[in-house]
Amino acid sequence: MSKKVAVVLAGCGVYDGSEIHEAVLTLLALDRRDISYQCFAPNINQLHVINHLTGAEATGESRNVLIEAARIARGNVQDLAQARAEDFDALIVPGGFGAAKNLSDFAVKGSALTVQPDFLKFAQAFHRAGKPIGLICIAPAMSAKIFGEGVECTIGNDVETAAAIEATGAKHVACAVQKIVVDKRNKLVTTPAYMLAQRISEAADGINDCVNTVIDMA
Amino acid sequence: MSKKVAVVLAGCGVYDGSEIHEAVLTLLALDRRDISYQCFAPNINQLHVINHLTGAEATGESRNVLIEAARIARGNVQDLAQARAEDFDALIVPGGFGAAKNLSDFAVKGSALTVQPDFLKFAQAFHRAGKPIGLICIAPAMSAKIFGEGVECTIGNDVETAAAIEATGAKHVACAVQKIVVDKRNKLVTTPAYMLAQRISEAADGINDCVNTVIDMA
Repeated sequence: MSKKVAVVLAGCGVYDGSEIHEAVLTLLALDRRDISYQCFAPNINQLHVINHLTGAEATGESRNVLIEAARIARGNVQDLAQARAEDFDALIVPGGFGAAKNLSDFAVKGSALTVQPDFLKFAQAFHRAGKPIGLICIAPAMSAKIFGEGVECTIGNDVETAAAIEATGAKHVACAVQKIVVDKRNKLVTTPAYMLAQRISEAADGINDCVNTVIDMA
Repeated sequence: MSKKVAVVLAGCGVYDGSEIHEAVLTLLALDRRDISYQCFAPNINQLHVINHLTGAEATGESRNVLIEAARIARGNVQDLAQARAEDFDALIVPGGFGAAKNLSDFAVKGSALTVQPDFLKFAQAFHRAGKPIGLICIAPAMSAKIFGEGVECTIGNDVETAAAIEATGAKHVACAVQKIVVDKRNKLVTTPAYMLAQRISEAADGINDCVNTVIDMA
């Protein structure tokens, strides 16, 4: 277990937090390669709480991103504000709306997004140190904010979302569900996962490839 | 996709619901075998809500098992009260404290447990029809209530829990983390998963074996 990877979570549930399948598949792919990992999440309130049965907002309810992320991490998650990129060889961020609602406000502001300060600082430290980053599903919407203009990434093939990402300064590359897009210069690996997946095994294939490619670059 | 499997969830999170890794690994194992599945959960309140970061009860908070299970199922979960065993070839139940707090009260009452009525009725219908059942982690604590005395199952090797299970009338068989115990007469397959697993890949190995064995029996 030589290499160590930081995994940033954004809550627990596809509509208001981290996409659970993607997060678990990421941890499984890391563990299958004998890579140790540490989960982090920002200690902030979620944008809102979504009833995942109805899809409606659970008005009046409030949940904390770090506390909910602990469900996926079985309690072993740390405050992102205390995370140090020096301690890790790579960073991976699963998707779900949490990446666009809690780690950034892409779901609300589109191409005018801002990125949560703790996450931005942490991710940029990896980039500056030449360490690889894997962004899954909708998380690549933050690519230009982390890497700067011209960075290549994918969220699959959704035209509207791709246009919003291009408007941030990134270059969007269409990609099939089980595939990845690699920006070698920036050491960024992205995969569509549930932006396109119709079943969990499709998401797993792309995430396995993403995780393995990030590890090999580290 | 000929065979169809029902997966019963008990919330979302190891300490008060379904163990998330076990649930996702179950769905992945089914999908890898091209088996279609439908998730169900009881439409009841959780016993309580646990803050998974601190391990303490979130007093005053209340969550619904079905609504929280929808997080794992990406919205595609149905009320267990409406589930019909005739529609499925097999049943699988991931673990987590939800199996011992929401699907039963084993966590509170030990060997004097009662099983949630909708779940008991559903599971017994599979047993009566000669259809296989897979119970993961702590879920096998309900075995004697579903199958009757003498049923063979495992929760790993925890002496106290095994004794409580034997006191219900079941026969507990010690089992390594990546292995399964098969009661051929009852068509029950059990695996310890996070009762013993130190890492997600260990849980995955046992769950893959459990799911594949259940499918092959169906």
